[in-house]
Amino acid sequence: MDDIVLAGDLGGTNLRLAVVNSAGKLIHRVEAETPRHINALRIIELVGCLAAECRTITGTDPKSLVFAIPGPIHAEKGEIFNVPNLPELKGSDLVNRLAEELDIAVMLENDATAAAMGERWLGASKGFDSSICVTLGTGVGGGIIIDGKPLRGPDGTAGEIGHICLEPLGPKCGCGSNGCLEQFSSATAIVRMANELKGEYPESKVHCMTDFDSVGLFQLGKHGDALCVEVFRRAGVYLGIALAGMINVLNPEAIVIGGGAAEGWDLFIDAMHSEIRKRAFREPAERARIVRASLGSDAGIVGAAFLAFQKSGIISEA
Amino acid sequence: MDDIVLAGDLGGTNLRLAVVNSAGKLIHRVEAETPRHINALRIIELVGCLAAECRTITGTDPKSLVFAIPGPIHAEKGEIFNVPNLPELKGSDLVNRLAEELDIAVMLENDATAAAMGERWLGASKGFDSSICVTLGTGVGGGIIIDGKPLRGPDGTAGEIGHICLEPLGPKCGCGSNGCLEQFSSATAIVRMANELKGEYPESKVHCMTDFDSVGLFQLGKHGDALCVEVFRRAGVYLGIALAGMINVLNPEAIVIGGGAAEGWDLFIDAMHSEIRKRAFREPAERARIVRASLGSDAGIVGAAFLAFQKSGIISEA
Repeated sequence: MDDIVLAGDLGGTNLRLAVVNSAGKLIHRVEAETPRHINALRIIELVGCLAAECRTITGTDPKSLVFAIPGPIHAEKGEIFNVPNLPELKGSDLVNRLAEELDIAVMLENDATAAAMGERWLGASKGFDSSICVTLGTGVGGGIIIDGKPLRGPDGTAGEIGHICLEPLGPKCGCGSNGCLEQFSSATAIVRMANELKGEYPESKVHCMTDFDSVGLFQLGKHGDALCVEVFRRAGVYLGIALAGMINVLNPEAIVIGGGAAEGWDLFIDAMHSEIRKRAFREPAERARIVRASLGSDAGIVGAAFLAFQKSGIISEA
Repeated sequence: MDDIVLAGDLGGTNLRLAVVNSAGKLIHRVEAETPRHINALRIIELVGCLAAECRTITGTDPKSLVFAIPGPIHAEKGEIFNVPNLPELKGSDLVNRLAEELDIAVMLENDATAAAMGERWLGASKGFDSSICVTLGTGVGGGIIIDGKPLRGPDGTAGEIGHICLEPLGPKCGCGSNGCLEQFSSATAIVRMANELKGEYPESKVHCMTDFDSVGLFQLGKHGDALCVEVFRRAGVYLGIALAGMINVLNPEAIVIGGGAAEGWDLFIDAMHSEIRKRAFREPAERARIVRASLGSDAGIVGAAFLAFQKSGIISEA
């Protein structure tokens, strides 16, 4: 293996690919909309195109591809067994098919684990041995690092902080449960809560919008729209309840919050801290530094590259 | 250090001490009611008496004492900083005062961590590298083992599964939060719920009792008392919700359930499994073997002894 890799991050919305060197520099980075199809064919084709672009433009020939996936990676086979936000990947034999398409060694990594390692390598949790990375996106992803190592678990499913139940009779969750963190603090949940509550806020500017996303709601909230302020406050309350539990259970040194809905930081952070103060034990709550992710949408790519370099021995840092 | 230690377990109700050898055998074991006082003096005196008894009867002279405590142990100082169920221990300098009283080397260990390691060494989670041990007693304790090592965290507070919030507006918890697992599934909570609900069950035999504990309620429930059946069912529902979260977050191989209220196993286990099936991801839920603790009230002593032997190099098993 070279000291460059192709590192990708496959999201429900976007697919990103980059040539990354062993210092974590993205030498060339491309992004496209994730093609949705009944199977993984279009995704594999697109990765092929983007990889060709990366190779041509950088004039490099990476010998391995590491790909972050929004679902658990089977520990032994290194394969996907269930991807809630991209069900067409299930049973797709992605490793072998990407390897064939690109003529390259392929490894998969869970995207939240990759993001957590990325933030630890070059981002917001640098220097911390134990951390939790929470990604508030379409869903709520979670990556846990203990003693410098990702916690994957024997099924590769560890870290699913988004599916801690906070309201046993709360909104139905895609996972089959009710009232998961994801139903309150994801970008999707913020939009849903705005729709649920807008009747109580006839003055809200939301009524002037035909369509809105969590970023739009944050913009309105920043300008004082009471509905939007309330929606982000609720997202913060539930995020705080979940993180208080994680602080009590894991006693982490740092908690990194990223993802699209983390844009709303200023509107949810007070409510979040208030719940943590109330519900977590004092010592570990004071210990846990809660910080915004700093690598943005590149965290997964950077962390996936780190894990590939670490696996091949190019980076030995624990 | 010899291949025997004095190992103790200080609970809110009972104090246990034993001479334990490196095979985990309790050569002599004594138990007394935990003396409650404004400070730790009486506890230290009692440990002194019990230790003298152990030394005399066994004719041995253990060179070290390891003591399991119902609270977090400060990682660097090895001292106590907060013990909710024995507040008189706070700032008691227990290590040095026990060392003086007994003329022995002293180390402290969190009781839930000790119990988890005991069950892994010689009990219900033997052979599993990652496990969670939940103790349903006066409170709900939790010990987590990952890759064969206890998860303590930098403040020694990790593992507090009893203080995951399951009902944000639920019953007030001693920790300052509301609706913690401890408020639904501890022996204390089972008694509280029986009192809260008994008005709705005029036929219940509970009305014939002047006082009852969780074991008494279990006996009635076993004979079909509908109130007692319902109370244990609720305890099982909330235990299942909490464990589903832990399965999603930690992907453990085994979950060991012990403590006094685990006596009610037959009355709560179905409700618990039902919530786990509903709320946890399928693969890790199928993976996690949920078993009853097998070392009973000795788990803490056995695990504390193991950790002492491991620390001194007498036992090297990871």
